[in-house]
Amino acid sequence: MAENVSTHPYLPQGLKLPCRYVENDKSIQELLGVFFGLTALVMVSTWIYSGSSAKVKLSTGQRLTVCWFVLCGCIHLILEGWFSVFHNSIAGDQSFLSQLWKEYSKADSRYVSADNFTVVMESITAFLEGPGSFLAAWAILENKPSRYLLQLLVSTGQLYGDILYYTIEYKDGFIHGPMWHPLYFWFYFMFLNSFWIVIPFCLLVQSCGKVSQAQSALDKTGAGKKRK
Amino acid sequence: MAENVSTHPYLPQGLKLPCRYVENDKSIQELLGVFFGLTALVMVSTWIYSGSSAKVKLSTGQRLTVCWFVLCGCIHLILEGWFSVFHNSIAGDQSFLSQLWKEYSKADSRYVSADNFTVVMESITAFLEGPGSFLAAWAILENKPSRYLLQLLVSTGQLYGDILYYTIEYKDGFIHGPMWHPLYFWFYFMFLNSFWIVIPFCLLVQSCGKVSQAQSALDKTGAGKKRK
Repeated sequence: MAENVSTHPYLPQGLKLPCRYVENDKSIQELLGVFFGLTALVMVSTWIYSGSSAKVKLSTGQRLTVCWFVLCGCIHLILEGWFSVFHNSIAGDQSFLSQLWKEYSKADSRYVSADNFTVVMESITAFLEGPGSFLAAWAILENKPSRYLLQLLVSTGQLYGDILYYTIEYKDGFIHGPMWHPLYFWFYFMFLNSFWIVIPFCLLVQSCGKVSQAQSALDKTGAGKKRK
Repeated sequence: MAENVSTHPYLPQGLKLPCRYVENDKSIQELLGVFFGLTALVMVSTWIYSGSSAKVKLSTGQRLTVCWFVLCGCIHLILEGWFSVFHNSIAGDQSFLSQLWKEYSKADSRYVSADNFTVVMESITAFLEGPGSFLAAWAILENKPSRYLLQLLVSTGQLYGDILYYTIEYKDGFIHGPMWHPLYFWFYFMFLNSFWIVIPFCLLVQSCGKVSQAQSALDKTGAGKKRK
């Protein structure tokens, strides 16, 4: 067979993929429509659920935080979990999630080429922060004492992973996608990932305050001192 | 000049360094002797200081935690800070810290070659976890309400960084050093770095328990509910 196995649309030119590339048969409209449609569905249904089923009455901010963590849990476990497990075959696979990754990889080919840092970081995100996100949502709904702790742990992990993700690509010279491209660079790479900088940062600051407040209150009662 | 600028002792063969390699003029005994000597000095002096200068009487575990964080602060800020700032010139530099990195790089050449993941991860370790470690030590000595929070944040960052560090090299097939070599693989790479898995994990578990306990105590007083 004299097929050119290296023909693919990804940057940098000559990038080696772990398997033979097959072009998507689903359109970008279909892929993004289903992704953002499901995102909206998760957000709206969690919003409704959190208004009626929480153990204590939640504030608007807390309900939004629950929505965020449920969405994160879904994205981390399903989408990033898929990448973590099937990264070596995504380039040639036509399932919906693989096609979504092939589309996103036009912005960052480290996904379709199964770059080692990306695989390891995404595996931690999928299998530690994914379940952690669901636990954090549950802890807020149930008003568990671990609610700020889980918020803090998941947000720290997300922030660390995303800072590495951006900064390594910056140091690589943004060679894995078309720089300044409106859709690929600005929307997929910069905008979509920026949610995992801005929101975890805010949630981290809030949970740090809450954790310190609780310890301060405990120390004032003298119980903190006895425990040491 | 027809000098072979790529002659160096690092793996994999043909590895490109960011500048011309100059062989260490200090012996391994001198480098390790000074490093472990200073490590012992920091630990012993912090141990003595923590026994007399803390705001409340600290337990043995707390004093050891203070010693750990002061040592981490020194290693992160000075040793890893040096790498973060001078990674492009270490291969050809003869200052003490550069020679230490050239020696360590025989176990992991990602340092001497200024690998992008390694530079970014070490920069976060140096300039976030470094000051964070000193803050954590200070917070324990001063019995601040933020003491478990800082312990938790620094330990999470150390654990995340070190898990990435090991796992990416595992996925790379341990190509950056001589595999199974008693000194380079087992002692430098596996043993020395394992401290930043084992100790942060223990400190993370402890601080998670403390943070949840404090929130639980606050929630029981009803103050937690009013605040929401």
